[in-house]
Parts: sequence; structure tokens; C-alpha cells
Amino acid sequence: MAVYTDVTDDDLLPFLAAYGLQEPVAFKGIAEGVENSNYYVGFEDQAAILTLYERRTRAEDLPFFLSLMQHLHHQGLPVPLPYAQTNGALLGTLAGRPAALISFLPGLSVRKPTRDHCAQLGTALARLHVAAQSFPLQRLNSMGRDAWGPLIQACDGQPETLQTGAMQMIWQALEDVHRQWPEGLPAGIIHADLFPNNVLFRGTDVSGLIDFYFAATDLFAYDVAIALNAWCFEPDVSYNITKGRALLDGYQSVRRLESTEVYALPLLCQAAALRFLATRLYDWFHRPAGALVKPHDPVEYMKKLHFHRDVNSARAYGVESK
Amino acid sequence: MAVYTDVTDDDLLPFLAAYGLQEPVAFKGIAEGVENSNYYVGFEDQAAILTLYERRTRAEDLPFFLSLMQHLHHQGLPVPLPYAQTNGALLGTLAGRPAALISFLPGLSVRKPTRDHCAQLGTALARLHVAAQSFPLQRLNSMGRDAWGPLIQACDGQPETLQTGAMQMIWQALEDVHRQWPEGLPAGIIHADLFPNNVLFRGTDVSGLIDFYFAATDLFAYDVAIALNAWCFEPDVSYNITKGRALLDGYQSVRRLESTEVYALPLLCQAAALRFLATRLYDWFHRPAGALVKPHDPVEYMKKLHFHRDVNSARAYGVESK
Repeated sequence: MAVYTDVTDDDLLPFLAAYGLQEPVAFKGIAEGVENSNYYVGFEDQAAILTLYERRTRAEDLPFFLSLMQHLHHQGLPVPLPYAQTNGALLGTLAGRPAALISFLPGLSVRKPTRDHCAQLGTALARLHVAAQSFPLQRLNSMGRDAWGPLIQACDGQPETLQTGAMQMIWQALEDVHRQWPEGLPAGIIHADLFPNNVLFRGTDVSGLIDFYFAATDLFAYDVAIALNAWCFEPDVSYNITKGRALLDGYQSVRRLESTEVYALPLLCQAAALRFLATRLYDWFHRPAGALVKPHDPVEYMKKLHFHRDVNSARAYGVESK
Repeated sequence: MAVYTDVTDDDLLPFLAAYGLQEPVAFKGIAEGVENSNYYVGFEDQAAILTLYERRTRAEDLPFFLSLMQHLHHQGLPVPLPYAQTNGALLGTLAGRPAALISFLPGLSVRKPTRDHCAQLGTALARLHVAAQSFPLQRLNSMGRDAWGPLIQACDGQPETLQTGAMQMIWQALEDVHRQWPEGLPAGIIHADLFPNNVLFRGTDVSGLIDFYFAATDLFAYDVAIALNAWCFEPDVSYNITKGRALLDGYQSVRRLESTEVYALPLLCQAAALRFLATRLYDWFHRPAGALVKPHDPVEYMKKLHFHRDVNSARAYGVESK
């Protein structure tokens, strides 16, 4: 939950005027997202989200994220459309921060996805991968596999206090992922953070894909692995193969996975688990004392990593090797 | 900013069903209010605020607050209307907390009120006092003058570190307020917390009076004094008599102040300053280390108290004694 930067009406009205917009009828800080400040901005005939980008989002990456969203929106995906200022700019400045206004999408995020949600999510993810192929820009994945080791190193062995044997499993998994990384798989723009809180549904239909601030150029199958980790485990961290099969079938109804991608899935699922385990461990052991924002539990991703290390074939996820 | 209690779709949909409401199109935690958890709930044809009452709001007071809002709304004031469940109840339970759904009001709160905002605020405050006279319930002011001494006592002399001489001024003011408290002034239901963040405007018209969770039976002129403190000082804590006169004239265009009320205004302004100084000092010296929620600056209200102690007559606030 977060509103780090305070926006006063003195700042807001001139900012909106640059978009040709009048005084809004509603303006509320949203307790959502941990990286940036978000506001709901309501007008008589439309609604938007105002985002102020805080320190952890690199300003030089913002044009990539905003034009990617614009591209995907125009390709027909349920992605918010960044508003353009009357001078054409997608990015503005508000209260001393880079800021953007994007269209508000209806829908609710689900906390406990069903099989149907997973099926629709898989389809939407494949549509995203396909639609982004005509997007001309690239972005190096700053949270790619070279970033994980240093984050875990910075925890100084403390993860061992959460679970005995944790450090050995983590270092071994990191080594395996680096040594066995599948070269030459299909790649393109991936979302890289498509967790349930970044997807809106109306009923079981996907009505919104949001928060593209980790999007980067990487392997499509790695993005699928992130989604399997985020959507197909039960609250007790047991893998639900019915949901996994639904997600993978949904994905393949739009884009068929190549046999090399299917083969690599167990390793990529380990990689995806390591990526979120690394940031969760770092945030867990570097949180300020008494901070109100509760970091995500890293143990959840230790258990997921452990599960993936026992998997012998992609069949365990609900897809047949070809 | 606050969402203390997490609401999942599993909890939300049955809760809304008790009001005869379907799945909403939007559901967002609002980073507003420090006492309770608030969510924006959007439907196709209407919008509401969902409030979950946290520990600091006493559950036994909630029926008073909710039926007061209902009463004021039906009297034509721009006050949110609590939704009734199909069984007639205004108060429900969600995620183990007392919870209510109230209508969403359009408008923006202002950070830097102008003379016109102050005039409209004064009028709205008087309308509130008049409209509440037909409300049958009463509530003892739990943040009335007996509460301030213990809060200041609990700061253990530390306010002196903020400003030399603070403790002497505060104890002397407390003694004066208790000794000179004006008995027999017109009383009724007051809002008791009508700060700019609890008032919505469209242009300079008041479109919403919100957050009635301190409303209680007390002196009308004390509520006026709270408003003068909250609305008529500049950011450098100098009193702006033009804004004060506008607020008082606006108030008197609906309800004339009696001469005894005007006479008591300087003392009641001290009392109002003490009330907010007491809670701000308490929160300042009892905040958890590293907490993200920054408490309000108590020094602002020390300066206001100091100003009021130098005032000889209500004329200094912009109203003629009669």
C-alpha cells in the first residue's frame, strides 16, 4: 500500500490541464503497489489512474513501459492506455516526480484463482506475447538471472534462520539455472510480473493486464514459468496440476509451446521461483524496523523452489512433452 | 494512508450480496484516513466507500455515527448515505471487522483553502448544526476537554524538547480552559473534526462532508472554533482574518451566533487548539520507530495555541461582539 508523494490541488489542476482535462470529480490515493504512488482520478465521463514514479523505477525506462502499454492497447489487449498530453507526450512531471495518467480498467483482482481464471490468464499471456512481437523497442531484463545472486548474497546467510538447509538449496539451484540455462528459445517482450494482483477479471474474463514496470525482453517460456508459480499453487504451497494444465492449455490455444520450451519448463520454473525468492529475501532482511508495509513471505518461494527441484519432466506441470 | 484489513473477493461478494449488490466493476483500497480501512467500490451505475472499522473506533458508537449520517443526508446535506442491507441493517461484518458501505460523493478536498472555500465551509457547518437538531440521539464527546490532560501527561514532559516553555503554556491554557469554560451556550451535535481533508468541493461549492467518527454532543461555538483553527491559518501559521471573517459570515448567514458565543470564541479557540495539540503530541511521542505513517506536526498547534492566548476579543477572528 502506498502513496509516497502527496499531490495537492495546486499541483494537480495544471498537470491535468496539460492533457486538456478539467477539474476531476474524484481524486483518491490508492493503497496499492509498493514501488510507486497511485491515485484514482474520476471525471464525469471517464476515470484514470495517476502514477507518480518513485525512486525504484528508473526514469529512463518509463518511455519503454508507456509506449509498450500504448502498443498493446492498440493491438486490442485489455491494457491501460496512457493519456497523451496536448503536445503528444506520454510522460509528465508532478510534484517533482515523473508522472503518467493511464486509463482506468474495470474489474477485480482475484486472491484465490480458480481453474477458469487460470485458463483465461494463460490465454491472455499468450496474446500478450504475440501482440508484443510487433513492438519495436527492447529492454534488458534488469531483474534477470544475473541480479539474483547479489540480492541473495546481500542477505548474509540469514535465510538459513527461516529454514535449515535453505542456503545450500538456493546456491545449488542458482548454479543449476546458470549452467543449464536454455539458449535459443523463443524470446520477446515478457510481462515478468503477472501475479494475480496485476490482472483484473470480470467474472472469469480477463478485463485488465496492468503494471508493466518489470516488462523486458526475455524468454516467453520463462514468463509462463512465472505465471505457473504465481497462479497454480494452493495457499498451502502445493502445486495444483489441474490449474497448471488449464493455464498451459489456455496459453497453447493462442501460441503453441515448442518442444524445447516444454523441455526447459522445470528449469525455468526453478528460475522463476529463484527470481521472486531473491527479492523477497532481500526485502525481508532489509526492512526498516516497525515499517507498516509488510514484506512478502520468502518461505512461500523456498517451498516452490523445493517443489520444482523435485520435478523430472514438464508433465508434472500439466503439459505433455512432444 | 491506510488499509489495515485485507479484503478478499471470497469475503467481499457475500458481504455485497447482503445489500442486494452484484460483483462490482472496481475495488481499490484507498490510502486515506489513519483510523480505519477504506475501499472504493465501483458499480456500473453507482459508487460507494466500504469502511472496515479498526480497533480505535468503538463498535458501540457506530450505530450513532451511521444513523447521524443517514439523518443529515435526508435533511439535504451533502453527507454520504449509509447503504442498508436487505434486512435493514446499516452495519455489517466483513473480514472479522464491523463494516459499512456508504455512498461515494464527488469532489476534491483542498489543501490551501481560499476565502471562498472558507465562506462555503462556514455555511455548511451551520447547516449541519441546524439539521442535526432534529436528530434524536446524543453522544458524549469522548475527545472532550477531560481527555486532553491525560494525553499530555502521557508525553512525560517531552513536548519541551520541541519548544522551550511549551509545557508551561500548555498547562496554563488547560487550567484557563477548565476554569473559564462557558456554561449554558447553545449545544447539539457537532462534527468535531471538520478539517479540509474531511470536506469535498466542486469548484468552491461544498459537495461533501465526510468522516463523522468524532461527532458528539458539544457546544456549536466550539465546532466553529475547531473550523477556524483548521481552515483560517496560513502555512506559516499566521491567522488570516479575511478567511476567518468569511467563515464566520458564512456560518452566520444560516445560524446567528449569540453574543455569549461570540464572547467565548477566544477561549474556545484555545480549547480547540489544545484538543488537537493533545492528540498530536501523544501520537508524536508514541509513534513506533520507523513507522511509515508520519504523525501530524504538533508544533503547528502549539503556535496556534500561542496565537489564541494573545487574543483579547473575538474581533481578532473577524466577528464583531454584539
